[in-house]
Amino acid sequence: MLRSGALRLCPPGALRGPRGSASPPARESRPPPRSFASEAIRVDLSLPNPSWSKDMRLLFDQFMKKTEDGSWKRLPSYKYVSPQSTEVKTFFPDAKPVKGADMPQAQLFPRSLEEGRGFEYAMFHNHVENRTVCIFQGGPYLQGASGFLHGGAIATMMDSTLGACALRAGGVAMTANLNINFRRPIPLCSVVVINSQLDKVEGRKLFVSCNVQSVDGKTLHSEATSLFVKLNPKKV
Amino acid sequence: MLRSGALRLCPPGALRGPRGSASPPARESRPPPRSFASEAIRVDLSLPNPSWSKDMRLLFDQFMKKTEDGSWKRLPSYKYVSPQSTEVKTFFPDAKPVKGADMPQAQLFPRSLEEGRGFEYAMFHNHVENRTVCIFQGGPYLQGASGFLHGGAIATMMDSTLGACALRAGGVAMTANLNINFRRPIPLCSVVVINSQLDKVEGRKLFVSCNVQSVDGKTLHSEATSLFVKLNPKKV
Repeated sequence: MLRSGALRLCPPGALRGPRGSASPPARESRPPPRSFASEAIRVDLSLPNPSWSKDMRLLFDQFMKKTEDGSWKRLPSYKYVSPQSTEVKTFFPDAKPVKGADMPQAQLFPRSLEEGRGFEYAMFHNHVENRTVCIFQGGPYLQGASGFLHGGAIATMMDSTLGACALRAGGVAMTANLNINFRRPIPLCSVVVINSQLDKVEGRKLFVSCNVQSVDGKTLHSEATSLFVKLNPKKV
Repeated sequence: MLRSGALRLCPPGALRGPRGSASPPARESRPPPRSFASEAIRVDLSLPNPSWSKDMRLLFDQFMKKTEDGSWKRLPSYKYVSPQSTEVKTFFPDAKPVKGADMPQAQLFPRSLEEGRGFEYAMFHNHVENRTVCIFQGGPYLQGASGFLHGGAIATMMDSTLGACALRAGGVAMTANLNINFRRPIPLCSVVVINSQLDKVEGRKLFVSCNVQSVDGKTLHSEATSLFVKLNPKKV
């Protein structure tokens, strides 16, 4: 069932279509998450919700099919970041991060906007080919030039996808360089596919690249190369 | 007067301090904006509000002083993008943007999160030196690694600052390349200064660079070069 409130977020054509036949339970079939962080931390936001367009649902279903033989895995995604991840603080001891106890409201940036208004996405990883694919629908709150996604919103999803690929290939790592070529603007509320792959490993350096394509693969919207550095406090 | 609700967004130390002595009226002195877009489109969000920390207010006051002799100008910023800006659609006629009538909820990405939770910033431009400075406080909803800003949030503010610099130097332009080196992570709720400058103009190409520094100038967090291309539909 599509909620009428969500229908208004994107143009009518983008939101009609059959419900996806994805095997995992869709988000709309669950009761709305409670506002307690202890509850919300367990809500996987990489599942279909009423704001997803037909294109988004079809792509999701296609990738879910690929998970059946184990070659691809869907990556869950949560609004809250584990406060246990202290690698960055150890690697940069003078960086003085905000402590978790002082920041109960901290949320993962790409999950901080309301459902359907910001980043709607799901990622899938192939551990044999070291590839991560992100299907991404950018909502109306991600506007840059009138009617198009902001470059920073595209950079955010590229960085997230590249980071997911680097993480699975080499462990906890941070972006050291991100070099993006923006070729064609992305209309608001459209769906794109971000294809990333690990290109090379040199010691603690992970070289990962990606492109952003339209659903039909005919339009190349953006490309990026990146360098991630593995955090290994013991060697610092 | 600081509102208690806003005080909870960032660690206590970051939000205490005297009210800024800025000459323009602060946002908190106005009645809350109405929800009609026709009203909200006129609310300039580049003015102090209760979520701004002491550092943010002091920097704002310093730059406001520089505007007094006319060498620097404060750049206003709004949540809604003018639907009249059709340059992108003309430049990329096959891009099919969402039309304004279908997207009444569209909001400028860096202004789409609630006050104090996302991007709090103000920009100042020096038209003689072709420089744009952005003072930026990243809120708790911009988290990447635990306690630090997401790389995409940093990229967003860099792209916005570089774009503002390019716009004032050469007219409407779009990001073609953005190459970022992330050197030191930025703690959530801290304030940083983004310094951008126009380096070179070659025909329709504008080369703009920037860095992101701590308030005391001792820490270089990130650097970026960028290429913007002026949109001139008549020449296409």
